[in-house]
Amino acid sequence: MPLRNLDTCFSPALYEPELHKGSIVVIIDVLRASSAICTAFHNGVSAIIPVAGVEEAREYKKKGYLVAAERDGFILDFADFGNSPFNFTAEKVRGKTIVYSTTNGTGIIKLASSAYRIAIGSFLNFTAMIRWLLSQDKDVVLFCAGWKNRFNLEDSVCAGAYAKALLDSSSYSTICDSTLAAADLWSSAASDLRGYLEKCAQRSRLRSKGLDDCIDFCLTMDFTDKIPVIKNGILVNNI
Amino acid sequence: MPLRNLDTCFSPALYEPELHKGSIVVIIDVLRASSAICTAFHNGVSAIIPVAGVEEAREYKKKGYLVAAERDGFILDFADFGNSPFNFTAEKVRGKTIVYSTTNGTGIIKLASSAYRIAIGSFLNFTAMIRWLLSQDKDVVLFCAGWKNRFNLEDSVCAGAYAKALLDSSSYSTICDSTLAAADLWSSAASDLRGYLEKCAQRSRLRSKGLDDCIDFCLTMDFTDKIPVIKNGILVNNI
Repeated sequence: MPLRNLDTCFSPALYEPELHKGSIVVIIDVLRASSAICTAFHNGVSAIIPVAGVEEAREYKKKGYLVAAERDGFILDFADFGNSPFNFTAEKVRGKTIVYSTTNGTGIIKLASSAYRIAIGSFLNFTAMIRWLLSQDKDVVLFCAGWKNRFNLEDSVCAGAYAKALLDSSSYSTICDSTLAAADLWSSAASDLRGYLEKCAQRSRLRSKGLDDCIDFCLTMDFTDKIPVIKNGILVNNI
Repeated sequence: MPLRNLDTCFSPALYEPELHKGSIVVIIDVLRASSAICTAFHNGVSAIIPVAGVEEAREYKKKGYLVAAERDGFILDFADFGNSPFNFTAEKVRGKTIVYSTTNGTGIIKLASSAYRIAIGSFLNFTAMIRWLLSQDKDVVLFCAGWKNRFNLEDSVCAGAYAKALLDSSSYSTICDSTLAAADLWSSAASDLRGYLEKCAQRSRLRSKGLDDCIDFCLTMDFTDKIPVIKNGILVNNI
Protein backbone atom coordinates (compact mmCIF):
# COMPACT_ATOMS: atom_id res chain seq x y z
CA MET A 1 0.00 0.00 0.00
CA PRO A 2 1.47 3.40 -0.90
CA LEU A 3 2.19 5.63 2.08
CA ARG A 4 -0.27 8.38 2.83
CA ASN A 5 1.01 11.92 2.75
CA LEU A 6 1.38 14.02 5.89
CA ASP A 7 1.50 17.83 5.71
CA THR A 8 1.58 20.51 8.37
CA CYS A 9 0.40 24.09 8.11
CA PHE A 10 1.70 26.53 10.75
CA SER A 11 -0.84 29.31 10.19
CA PRO A 12 -4.11 30.01 8.34
CA ALA A 13 -2.05 32.41 6.18
CA LEU A 14 -0.08 29.40 4.89
CA TYR A 15 -3.00 27.05 4.13
CA GLU A 16 -3.34 25.94 0.50
CA PRO A 17 -6.89 24.54 0.07
CA GLU A 18 -6.35 23.22 -3.46
CA LEU A 19 -3.64 20.83 -2.22
CA HIS A 20 -5.79 19.19 0.41
CA LYS A 21 -9.13 18.34 -1.20
CA GLY A 22 -8.76 14.63 -0.49
CA SER A 23 -7.26 15.00 2.98
CA ILE A 24 -8.41 14.85 6.56
CA VAL A 25 -7.57 18.22 8.14
CA VAL A 26 -6.89 18.17 11.88
CA ILE A 27 -7.36 21.67 13.31
CA ILE A 28 -5.17 22.26 16.35
CA ASP A 29 -5.80 25.23 18.66
CA VAL A 30 -4.41 24.01 21.96
CA LEU A 31 -4.98 27.23 23.94
CA ARG A 32 -7.92 26.99 24.07
CA ALA A 33 -10.51 26.23 21.37
CA SER A 34 -9.52 22.65 20.48
CA SER A 35 -9.20 21.74 24.14
CA ALA A 36 -12.56 23.29 25.01
CA ILE A 37 -14.33 21.47 22.16
CA CYS A 38 -12.81 18.10 23.10
CA THR A 39 -13.83 18.67 26.72
CA ALA A 40 -17.39 19.55 25.72
CA PHE A 41 -17.76 16.28 23.79
CA HIS A 42 -16.19 14.34 26.65
CA ASN A 43 -18.87 15.84 28.88
CA GLY A 44 -21.64 14.79 26.57
CA VAL A 45 -22.48 17.78 24.40
CA SER A 46 -24.58 16.67 21.39
CA ALA A 47 -23.30 19.24 18.92
CA ILE A 48 -21.49 22.57 18.79
CA ILE A 49 -22.40 25.27 16.30
CA PRO A 50 -19.35 27.42 15.57
CA VAL A 51 -20.27 31.00 14.72
CA ALA A 52 -18.06 33.88 13.63
CA GLY A 53 -19.82 37.06 14.62
CA VAL A 54 -21.06 38.41 17.93
CA GLU A 55 -24.45 39.25 16.42
CA GLU A 56 -24.88 35.71 15.14
CA ALA A 57 -24.09 34.38 18.62
CA ARG A 58 -26.59 36.82 20.13
CA GLU A 59 -29.33 35.61 17.76
CA TYR A 60 -28.74 32.01 18.84
CA LYS A 61 -28.94 33.10 22.47
CA LYS A 62 -32.34 34.66 21.79
CA LYS A 63 -33.46 31.33 20.37
CA GLY A 64 -32.58 29.62 23.64
CA TYR A 65 -29.17 28.10 22.91
CA LEU A 66 -26.38 28.05 25.46
CA VAL A 67 -23.69 30.35 24.06
CA ALA A 68 -19.95 30.39 24.78
CA ALA A 69 -18.56 33.72 23.60
CA GLU A 70 -15.46 35.72 24.37
CA ARG A 71 -13.59 38.52 22.69
CA ASP A 72 -9.99 39.08 23.76
CA GLY A 73 -10.57 36.91 26.79
CA PHE A 74 -13.64 38.71 28.10
CA ILE A 75 -17.03 36.98 28.26
CA LEU A 76 -19.61 38.82 26.17
CA ASP A 77 -22.47 40.20 28.26
CA PHE A 78 -25.21 38.06 26.69
CA ALA A 79 -23.17 34.82 26.73
CA ASP A 80 -23.61 31.98 29.21
CA PHE A 81 -19.88 31.45 29.63
CA GLY A 82 -16.47 32.00 28.06
CA ASN A 83 -14.17 29.75 26.05
CA SER A 84 -12.26 28.01 28.84
CA PRO A 85 -12.56 24.20 28.75
CA PHE A 86 -13.55 24.36 32.43
CA ASN A 87 -16.84 25.99 31.42
CA PHE A 88 -18.06 23.01 29.41
CA THR A 89 -19.10 20.86 32.36
CA ALA A 90 -21.38 17.87 32.04
CA GLU A 91 -23.99 19.71 34.14
CA LYS A 92 -24.16 22.47 31.58
CA VAL A 93 -23.69 20.75 28.23
CA ARG A 94 -24.78 17.11 28.37
CA GLY A 95 -27.27 16.30 25.63
CA LYS A 96 -27.37 19.87 24.35
CA THR A 97 -26.52 21.66 21.13
CA ILE A 98 -24.52 24.72 22.10
CA VAL A 99 -23.06 27.69 20.25
CA TYR A 100 -19.35 28.56 20.30
CA SER A 101 -18.31 31.97 19.08
CA THR A 102 -14.86 32.01 17.49
CA THR A 103 -13.89 34.39 14.73
CA ASN A 104 -10.54 32.68 14.17
CA GLY A 105 -11.99 29.17 14.31
CA THR A 106 -14.80 29.74 11.85
CA GLY A 107 -12.36 31.33 9.41
CA ILE A 108 -10.17 28.25 9.61
CA ILE A 109 -13.13 25.88 9.18
CA LYS A 110 -14.14 27.84 6.07
CA LEU A 111 -10.59 27.71 4.70
CA ALA A 112 -10.49 23.95 5.12
CA SER A 113 -14.06 23.31 3.97
CA SER A 114 -13.00 21.78 0.63
CA ALA A 115 -11.09 19.00 2.40
CA TYR A 116 -12.43 15.45 2.72
CA ARG A 117 -13.06 15.92 6.43
CA ILE A 118 -12.25 18.34 9.27
CA ALA A 119 -11.49 17.04 12.76
CA ILE A 120 -10.47 18.81 15.98
CA GLY A 121 -7.19 17.71 17.55
CA SER A 122 -5.56 18.53 20.88
CA PHE A 123 -3.40 16.84 23.46
CA LEU A 124 -6.62 15.84 25.24
CA ASN A 125 -7.72 13.43 22.47
CA PHE A 126 -4.26 12.58 21.14
CA THR A 127 -4.19 8.77 21.11
CA ALA A 128 -7.82 8.43 20.04
CA MET A 129 -7.17 10.80 17.13
CA ILE A 130 -4.05 8.92 16.05
CA ARG A 131 -5.95 5.63 16.15
CA TRP A 132 -8.81 7.12 14.10
CA LEU A 133 -6.47 8.67 11.52
CA LEU A 134 -4.67 5.35 11.12
CA SER A 135 -8.00 3.66 10.47
CA GLN A 136 -8.70 6.01 7.54
CA ASP A 137 -7.00 5.64 4.17
CA LYS A 138 -6.46 9.35 3.71
CA ASP A 139 -3.73 11.95 3.53
CA VAL A 140 -3.59 14.14 6.63
CA VAL A 141 -2.95 17.85 7.16
CA LEU A 142 -2.12 19.09 10.65
CA PHE A 143 -3.52 22.64 10.60
CA CYS A 144 -2.23 24.86 13.43
CA ALA A 145 -4.67 27.65 14.21
CA GLY A 146 -1.92 30.02 15.30
CA TRP A 147 -2.75 33.44 16.69
CA LYS A 148 -3.81 36.29 14.41
CA ASN A 149 -2.28 34.42 11.48
CA ARG A 150 1.03 34.03 13.31
CA PHE A 151 2.99 30.86 14.01
CA ASN A 152 2.60 29.74 17.59
CA LEU A 153 4.56 27.32 19.67
CA GLU A 154 1.87 25.32 21.47
CA ASP A 155 -0.04 24.36 18.30
CA SER A 156 3.19 23.55 16.44
CA VAL A 157 4.46 21.35 19.25
CA CYS A 158 1.12 19.51 19.39
CA ALA A 159 1.23 19.08 15.60
CA GLY A 160 4.73 17.69 16.08
CA ALA A 161 3.45 15.09 18.55
CA TYR A 162 0.85 14.00 15.97
CA ALA A 163 3.47 14.06 13.19
CA LYS A 164 5.88 11.88 15.11
CA ALA A 165 3.22 9.29 15.96
CA LEU A 166 1.91 9.15 12.38
CA LEU A 167 5.37 8.94 10.80
CA ASP A 168 6.45 6.31 13.34
CA SER A 169 3.43 4.23 12.35
CA SER A 170 5.00 3.69 8.90
CA SER A 171 1.64 4.45 7.24
CA TYR A 172 2.61 8.04 6.41
CA SER A 173 5.51 9.81 4.77
CA THR A 174 6.22 13.51 4.32
CA ILE A 175 8.08 15.85 2.01
CA CYS A 176 6.90 18.85 4.01
CA ASP A 177 9.52 20.85 5.92
CA SER A 178 6.89 22.12 8.38
CA THR A 179 6.10 18.55 9.39
CA LEU A 180 9.79 17.78 9.94
CA ALA A 181 10.25 20.98 11.96
CA ALA A 182 7.14 20.30 14.07
CA ALA A 183 8.38 16.80 14.87
CA ASP A 184 11.73 18.24 15.98
CA LEU A 185 10.01 20.85 18.15
CA TRP A 186 8.03 18.03 19.77
CA SER A 187 11.30 16.18 20.40
CA SER A 188 12.62 19.30 22.18
CA ALA A 189 9.44 19.63 24.23
CA ALA A 190 8.30 16.07 24.93
CA SER A 191 10.27 15.32 28.08
CA ASP A 192 8.87 18.40 29.85
CA LEU A 193 5.96 19.77 27.83
CA ARG A 194 4.69 22.11 30.54
CA GLY A 195 8.15 23.50 31.23
CA TYR A 196 8.84 23.91 27.51
CA LEU A 197 5.67 25.88 26.88
CA GLU A 198 6.33 28.24 29.80
CA LYS A 199 7.94 30.51 27.23
CA CYS A 200 5.14 30.62 24.66
CA ALA A 201 3.49 33.96 23.94
CA GLN A 202 -0.09 32.75 24.40
CA ARG A 203 0.71 31.64 27.93
CA SER A 204 1.76 35.20 28.76
CA ARG A 205 -1.35 36.61 27.09
CA LEU A 206 -3.66 34.30 29.06
CA ARG A 207 -1.78 34.93 32.29
CA SER A 208 -2.09 38.70 31.92
CA LYS A 209 -5.88 38.27 31.73
CA GLY A 210 -6.09 35.72 34.55
CA LEU A 211 -7.14 33.05 32.04
CA ASP A 212 -4.17 30.74 32.43
CA ASP A 213 -5.75 28.41 35.00
CA CYS A 214 -6.63 25.89 32.26
CA ILE A 215 -3.19 25.61 30.63
CA ASP A 216 -2.05 22.67 32.70
CA PHE A 217 -5.27 20.83 31.77
CA CYS A 218 -4.94 21.69 28.05
CA LEU A 219 -1.51 20.01 28.04
CA THR A 220 -2.91 16.74 29.44
CA MET A 221 -2.55 13.75 27.15
CA ASP A 222 -5.51 11.45 26.51
CA PHE A 223 -8.17 12.92 28.75
CA THR A 224 -10.82 11.75 26.26
CA ASP A 225 -11.40 9.45 23.30
CA LYS A 226 -13.77 11.80 21.50
CA ILE A 227 -13.10 12.80 17.88
CA PRO A 228 -14.98 16.02 17.11
CA VAL A 229 -15.57 16.39 13.37
CA ILE A 230 -17.40 18.94 11.24
CA LYS A 231 -20.54 17.73 9.50
CA ASN A 232 -22.63 20.26 7.57
CA GLY A 233 -20.82 23.08 9.33
CA ILE A 234 -21.56 21.73 12.82
CA LEU A 235 -19.23 19.96 15.25
CA VAL A 236 -20.37 16.47 16.23
CA ASN A 237 -18.67 13.48 17.79
CA ASN A 238 -17.40 11.14 15.09
CA ILE A 239 -18.95 7.73 15.61
CA MET B 1 19.54 50.34 27.97
CA PRO B 2 16.26 48.62 27.08
CA LEU B 3 16.65 45.39 25.17
CA ARG B 4 16.04 45.48 21.46
CA ASN B 5 13.27 43.32 20.09
CA LEU B 6 13.96 40.25 17.97
CA ASP B 7 11.29 38.82 15.66
CA THR B 8 11.34 36.01 13.12
CA CYS B 9 9.12 35.57 10.09
CA PHE B 10 8.96 32.08 8.56
CA SER B 11 7.46 33.05 5.19
CA PRO B 12 6.65 36.11 3.09
CA ALA B 13 2.98 35.21 3.67
CA LEU B 14 3.51 35.92 7.40
CA TYR B 15 5.37 39.23 7.13
CA GLU B 16 3.68 42.22 8.81
CA PRO B 17 5.31 45.38 7.38
CA GLU B 18 3.59 47.79 9.74
CA LEU B 19 5.24 46.15 12.76
CA HIS B 20 8.79 46.51 11.47
CA LYS B 21 9.20 50.08 10.24
CA GLY B 22 12.03 50.83 12.64
CA SER B 23 13.76 47.46 12.29
CA ILE B 24 16.67 45.98 10.43
CA VAL B 25 15.29 43.12 8.34
CA VAL B 26 17.73 40.28 7.62
CA ILE B 27 16.54 38.33 4.57
CA ILE B 28 17.63 34.69 4.72
CA ASP B 29 17.45 32.48 1.61
CA VAL B 30 20.15 29.91 2.27
CA LEU B 31 19.55 27.75 -0.85
CA ARG B 32 20.65 29.72 -2.77
CA ALA B 33 20.02 33.47 -3.21
CA SER B 34 21.48 34.78 0.08
CA SER B 35 24.53 32.55 -0.31
CA ALA B 36 25.08 33.64 -3.93
CA ILE B 37 24.80 37.33 -3.03
CA CYS B 38 27.24 37.03 -0.12
CA THR B 39 29.67 35.16 -2.38
CA ALA B 40 29.43 37.81 -5.09
CA PHE B 41 30.33 40.57 -2.62
CA HIS B 42 33.15 38.46 -1.21
CA ASN B 43 34.46 38.21 -4.76
CA GLY B 44 34.39 41.96 -5.26
CA VAL B 45 31.13 42.73 -7.05
CA SER B 46 30.37 46.47 -6.81
CA ALA B 47 26.60 46.20 -6.78
CA ILE B 48 23.78 43.80 -7.61
CA ILE B 49 20.53 44.96 -9.16
CA PRO B 50 17.72 42.58 -8.19
CA VAL B 51 15.04 42.36 -10.87
CA ALA B 52 11.75 40.48 -10.83
CA GLY B 53 10.85 39.80 -14.44
CA VAL B 54 12.60 37.96 -17.24
CA GLU B 55 11.99 40.85 -19.64
CA GLU B 56 13.56 43.33 -17.24
CA ALA B 57 16.62 41.08 -16.99
CA ARG B 58 16.77 40.83 -20.77
CA GLU B 59 16.71 44.62 -21.12
CA TYR B 60 19.67 44.93 -18.74
CA LYS B 61 21.53 42.30 -20.77
CA LYS B 62 21.02 44.40 -23.90
CA LYS B 63 22.56 47.36 -22.08
CA GLY B 64 25.69 45.31 -21.44
CA TYR B 65 25.18 44.11 -17.85
CA LEU B 66 26.21 40.65 -16.71
CA VAL B 67 22.95 38.87 -15.87
CA ALA B 68 22.34 35.91 -13.54
CA ALA B 69 18.95 34.47 -14.36
CA GLU B 70 17.26 31.14 -13.75
CA ARG B 71 13.71 29.87 -13.72
CA ASP B 72 13.07 26.60 -11.93
CA GLY B 73 16.78 25.90 -11.92
CA PHE B 74 17.37 26.39 -15.65
CA ILE B 75 19.57 29.20 -16.92
CA LEU B 76 17.63 31.54 -19.22
CA ASP B 77 19.02 31.57 -22.76
CA PHE B 78 20.11 35.20 -22.76
CA ALA B 79 21.70 35.10 -19.30
CA ASP B 80 25.43 34.87 -18.55
CA PHE B 81 24.99 32.34 -15.76
CA GLY B 82 22.58 30.89 -13.26
CA ASN B 83 22.01 31.53 -9.56
CA SER B 84 24.52 29.15 -7.99
CA PRO B 85 27.05 30.88 -5.73
CA PHE B 86 29.80 29.12 -7.72
CA ASN B 87 28.97 31.30 -10.73
CA PHE B 88 29.87 34.55 -8.99
CA THR B 89 33.65 34.18 -9.29
CA ALA B 90 36.09 37.06 -8.84
CA GLU B 91 37.06 36.74 -12.51
CA LYS B 92 33.50 37.41 -13.57
CA VAL B 93 32.17 39.90 -11.05
CA ARG B 94 35.00 41.97 -9.51
CA GLY B 95 34.34 45.70 -9.82
CA LYS B 96 31.12 45.19 -11.76
CA THR B 97 27.46 45.99 -11.27
CA ILE B 98 25.53 42.86 -12.17
CA VAL B 99 21.88 41.92 -12.47
CA TYR B 100 20.27 39.11 -10.48
CA SER B 101 16.87 37.88 -11.56
CA THR B 102 14.76 36.62 -8.67
CA THR B 103 10.97 36.82 -8.61
CA ASN B 104 10.76 35.62 -5.02
CA GLY B 105 13.61 37.85 -3.81
CA THR B 106 12.33 41.07 -5.31
CA GLY B 107 8.90 40.37 -3.86
CA ILE B 108 10.44 40.01 -0.41
CA ILE B 109 12.54 43.15 -0.79
CA LYS B 110 9.39 45.06 -1.73
CA LEU B 111 7.50 43.65 1.26
CA ALA B 112 10.26 44.76 3.61
CA SER B 113 10.90 48.11 1.93
CA SER B 114 9.30 50.14 4.73
CA ALA B 115 11.81 48.81 7.27
CA TYR B 116 14.74 50.87 8.51
CA ARG B 117 17.20 48.74 6.56
CA ILE B 118 17.33 45.43 4.65
CA ALA B 119 20.40 43.19 4.86
CA ILE B 120 21.17 39.77 3.37
CA GLY B 121 22.06 37.01 5.83
CA SER B 122 23.35 33.48 5.35
CA PHE B 123 25.63 31.03 7.08
CA LEU B 124 28.46 32.43 4.92
CA ASN B 125 28.43 35.86 6.61
CA PHE B 126 27.10 34.76 9.98
CA THR B 127 29.57 36.20 12.48
CA ALA B 128 30.09 39.43 10.54
CA MET B 129 26.32 39.95 10.43
CA ILE B 130 25.91 39.28 14.16
CA ARG B 131 28.70 41.78 14.91
CA TRP B 132 27.13 44.39 12.65
CA LEU B 133 23.65 43.90 14.12
CA LEU B 134 25.04 44.24 17.64
CA SER B 135 26.68 47.54 16.61
CA GLN B 136 23.29 48.97 15.58
CA ASP B 137 20.71 50.16 18.10
CA LYS B 138 17.79 48.65 16.24
CA ASP B 139 15.15 45.96 16.54
CA VAL B 140 15.81 43.02 14.21
CA VAL B 141 13.55 40.82 12.10
CA LEU B 142 14.90 37.54 10.72
CA PHE B 143 12.92 37.13 7.49
CA CYS B 144 13.05 33.62 6.03
CA ALA B 145 12.44 33.65 2.28
CA GLY B 146 10.86 30.18 2.31
CA TRP B 147 9.78 28.54 -0.93
CA LYS B 148 6.62 29.61 -2.73
CA ASN B 149 5.40 31.19 0.51
CA ARG B 150 5.96 27.96 2.44
CA PHE B 151 7.99 27.45 5.60
CA ASN B 152 11.33 25.84 4.87
CA LEU B 153 13.79 24.15 7.11
CA GLU B 154 17.14 25.56 5.95
CA ASP B 155 16.13 29.22 6.27
CA SER B 156 14.46 28.59 9.63
CA VAL B 157 17.50 26.79 11.01
CA CYS B 158 19.76 29.62 9.82
CA ALA B 159 17.39 32.16 11.43
CA GLY B 160 17.65 30.07 14.58
CA ALA B 161 21.45 30.34 14.56
CA TYR B 162 21.10 34.13 14.31
CA ALA B 163 18.41 34.16 16.99
CA LYS B 164 20.49 32.16 19.44
CA ALA B 165 23.54 34.40 18.97
CA LEU B 166 21.53 37.61 19.33
CA LEU B 167 19.58 36.40 22.38
CA ASP B 168 22.79 35.09 23.98
CA SER B 169 24.34 38.55 23.55
CA SER B 170 21.87 39.93 26.11
CA SER B 171 21.16 42.91 23.84
CA TYR B 172 17.93 41.40 22.48
CA SER B 173 14.80 39.84 23.89
CA THR B 174 11.83 38.27 22.16
CA ILE B 175 8.15 37.61 22.70
CA CYS B 176 7.89 35.93 19.30
CA ASP B 177 7.16 32.20 19.21
CA SER B 178 8.76 31.88 15.76
CA THR B 179 12.04 33.14 17.18
CA LEU B 180 11.89 30.62 20.04
CA ALA B 181 11.05 27.79 17.65
CA ALA B 182 13.84 28.75 15.24
CA ALA B 183 16.36 28.79 18.08
CA ASP B 184 15.22 25.30 19.11
CA LEU B 185 15.48 24.02 15.54
CA TRP B 186 19.03 25.39 15.44
CA SER B 187 19.76 23.52 18.69
CA SER B 188 18.57 20.32 17.01
CA ALA B 189 20.68 20.97 13.92
CA ALA B 190 23.85 22.65 15.19
CA SER B 191 25.96 19.62 16.00
CA ASP B 192 25.55 18.24 12.46
CA LEU B 193 24.07 20.93 10.23
CA ARG B 194 24.75 19.12 6.97
CA GLY B 195 23.34 15.84 8.24
CA TYR B 196 20.30 17.61 9.69
CA LEU B 197 19.44 19.34 6.42
CA GLU B 198 19.73 16.13 4.40
CA LYS B 199 15.98 15.83 4.91
CA CYS B 200 14.94 19.30 3.75
CA ALA B 201 12.68 19.56 0.69
CA GLN B 202 14.83 22.11 -1.17
CA ARG B 203 17.80 19.75 -1.06
CA SER B 204 15.72 17.13 -2.90
CA ARG B 205 14.51 19.72 -5.41
CA LEU B 206 18.06 20.88 -6.18
CA ARG B 207 19.35 17.34 -6.34
CA SER B 208 16.70 16.30 -8.86
CA LYS B 209 17.95 19.10 -11.13
CA GLY B 210 21.63 18.42 -10.56
CA LEU B 211 21.96 21.75 -8.75
CA ASP B 212 22.90 20.43 -5.34
CA ASP B 213 26.68 20.74 -5.76
CA CYS B 214 26.69 24.05 -3.86
CA ILE B 215 24.77 22.93 -0.77
CA ASP B 216 27.82 21.99 1.25
CA PHE B 217 29.31 25.42 0.49
CA CYS B 218 26.06 27.25 1.38
CA LEU B 219 26.18 25.64 4.84
CA THR B 220 29.71 26.93 5.52
CA MET B 221 30.01 29.31 8.45
CA ASP B 222 31.92 32.56 8.10
CA PHE B 223 33.25 32.34 4.58
CA THR B 224 33.06 36.13 4.29
CA ASP B 225 32.72 39.31 6.35
CA LYS B 226 30.56 41.13 3.80
CA ILE B 227 27.21 42.62 4.79
CA PRO B 228 25.08 43.10 1.67
CA VAL B 229 22.41 45.76 2.23
CA ILE B 230 19.77 47.36 0.04
CA LYS B 231 20.28 51.03 -0.80
CA ASN B 232 17.85 52.65 -3.24
CA GLY B 233 16.69 49.24 -4.39
CA ILE B 234 20.21 48.01 -5.17
CA LEU B 235 22.39 45.60 -3.20
CA VAL B 236 25.72 47.07 -2.07
CA ASN B 237 28.28 46.10 0.52
CA ASN B 238 27.61 47.89 3.79
CA ILE B 239 30.68 49.87 4.77
